[in-house]
Amino acid sequence: MTHPSHHYAVIFCSWRSDANDGYGPTADRMIELAREQSGFLGVRSARNPDGFGITVSYWTDEAAIRAWKRNAEHRIAQERGRRQWYADYEICVARVERSYRMDGSPG
Amino acid sequence: MTHPSHHYAVIFCSWRSDANDGYGPTADRMIELAREQSGFLGVRSARNPDGFGITVSYWTDEAAIRAWKRNAEHRIAQERGRRQWYADYEICVARVERSYRMDGSPG
Repeated sequence: MTHPSHHYAVIFCSWRSDANDGYGPTADRMIELAREQSGFLGVRSARNPDGFGITVSYWTDEAAIRAWKRNAEHRIAQERGRRQWYADYEICVARVERSYRMDGSPG
Repeated sequence: MTHPSHHYAVIFCSWRSDANDGYGPTADRMIELAREQSGFLGVRSARNPDGFGITVSYWTDEAAIRAWKRNAEHRIAQERGRRQWYADYEICVARVERSYRMDGSPG
């Protein structure tokens, strides 16, 4: 992903509970919905078989991150996540200083 | 993980190749070695069954990140990673602005 300099990353680390009801479709829908938001730059996601996962989303600025956090459909999913799908999570908002790929090109 | 404010995250996204020879032990060793470095704060890692993975390591400052990148044993692993274990990767260095957990406590 090539981005403007000094964009932002949201690092979402989560530990899934045993509750799967509705999780998959909602997780997919949240990715789809995020892609539609103003200021969205990209997303990467990985999860271990033991239920620990990391999703990193990239945004142009902090205002875009705040707007996404407040998105009505996203808020419903967040609430259900806390109540049902996650045993725990941690969220880290960080300003990207630099990025690069394996071939040395800008990330 | 509770950290000093304005620490740094290194987001390492990688796409594994089909080559497994020596990968697991070296990956484990790099986590162990990173933990011994000055300025290391913590690490999280997840990988999908399809071979895509994200490792996020946290550091006190950029000098600690540069020193880790230059670590002799780590450089050998990096070289082998580029040549053998990874089809591609991207690295993003970011300054943590804020973090929090599911219960609302600081991350």
